[in-house]
Amino acid sequence: MVLAAAVNFNMEKIKQKIISFIQKKSTGKPVVLGLSGGIDSTVVAYLAVQAIGKEKVFGLIMPSKTNTKEDEKLAVLVSNILEIEYDVINIENILASYQQSCDYFNNKLNIGNLKARIRMSILYGLANATKSLVLGTGNKSEISIGYFTKYGDAACDLLPIGDLYKTQVRELAKYLKVPTAIINREPTAGLWIGQTDEKEMGITYKLLDQILFAMSHKKNLKSFNPIDIELVQKYIDRSEHKRKLPTICKI
Amino acid sequence: MVLAAAVNFNMEKIKQKIISFIQKKSTGKPVVLGLSGGIDSTVVAYLAVQAIGKEKVFGLIMPSKTNTKEDEKLAVLVSNILEIEYDVINIENILASYQQSCDYFNNKLNIGNLKARIRMSILYGLANATKSLVLGTGNKSEISIGYFTKYGDAACDLLPIGDLYKTQVRELAKYLKVPTAIINREPTAGLWIGQTDEKEMGITYKLLDQILFAMSHKKNLKSFNPIDIELVQKYIDRSEHKRKLPTICKI
Repeated sequence: MVLAAAVNFNMEKIKQKIISFIQKKSTGKPVVLGLSGGIDSTVVAYLAVQAIGKEKVFGLIMPSKTNTKEDEKLAVLVSNILEIEYDVINIENILASYQQSCDYFNNKLNIGNLKARIRMSILYGLANATKSLVLGTGNKSEISIGYFTKYGDAACDLLPIGDLYKTQVRELAKYLKVPTAIINREPTAGLWIGQTDEKEMGITYKLLDQILFAMSHKKNLKSFNPIDIELVQKYIDRSEHKRKLPTICKI
Repeated sequence: MVLAAAVNFNMEKIKQKIISFIQKKSTGKPVVLGLSGGIDSTVVAYLAVQAIGKEKVFGLIMPSKTNTKEDEKLAVLVSNILEIEYDVINIENILASYQQSCDYFNNKLNIGNLKARIRMSILYGLANATKSLVLGTGNKSEISIGYFTKYGDAACDLLPIGDLYKTQVRELAKYLKVPTAIINREPTAGLWIGQTDEKEMGITYKLLDQILFAMSHKKNLKSFNPIDIELVQKYIDRSEHKRKLPTICKI
């Protein structure tokens, strides 16, 4: 397997690096993060608690009606296992208020992006009120292909697992003894009913990660199907603006 | 005057640069921007219309109850002068829905930041629905000292006047023949009643721009009051994180 041979799978070393990062970059402040019941936010929560202690980590669970009851249950389970404080804030009424105030939010993609921005706004509200930092839960696979909402779920202060492929996040979750119900869930952004990441992206994380790794190390791509390479390249190109600061007109 | 002697005040040249920038970077797409009735958003709207034509520029006026009727009137005036399409979307109900859903928004600074994020979310809703780009209206003075909301008013695709000091924006407004009622208004972010930029910053734009310019060109700062220099330096240092992408833990 291309990826396994080359990517860092020394989980103890990765864990220690991220723990040190959170310790150093949080500069004594508490942190807040959104808990979805998915693997990314769970791993970040586990590492944050190990880094700065459960008293300094606050979880926000922000369901909407397109999330399953299972999502919320797992996010609460994570909070209970880690013994961190958490709030559950249903975002449906906020979403409805946007839709009542203007008519721009009328398709699933648009509504999905709005949900991500509502969650960001709430996270920063809590962070501002408690002088905390916002931990992002994006991983390298998503970031590389732009599978996130600009100024939504990607908007944060620190990105602890932003340099880990999804494949590595999954391994790290196992190493951290995250509940298997979370590890075995089909990854989903939960932005509409039935959404799964792999269905929407049109590629599995396993294959995506192998191609991304090969590309970033200028390895030979011959072993991959050209259609898959093209798809990944298209995602990378189209999302370049999402990984940059706004473009300034230089005078 | 330190600034006048050194900063580019060739308004025709600046105008042409920004017009070319918008033409090139918008890549044929329409643009949307928030119109506050203030000088920054007005100047950006004027330049956008000159760059890509009035049919491709859409203004969003998003008052809340802390804006005066005058704000809205001036924003409508700008839209009418430029003959661009616009919508007026009052954000009070959305704001109230956040406050009813959680208890984090209970002081003026927090509410002010939330308003900026609500406006960003609406702008991107319109931009997504119409495949447009979001023009930001931040200027160099604000950006340099972090006088903006992270992932709020600073969140955009293109920043046409992001390299112009407020002093230059004002000159450009005069050059573009923006209504004098807009040029002569006291600058305000309008996030709470009675807010003015200069009162909140504790320094005039004129002095701020002179100090920022001297700092960025490593000029002698001896002619300035040390208290003012310290204040500006404090703002710059504290807001460094706002001018960066989220910090990633490198593995």
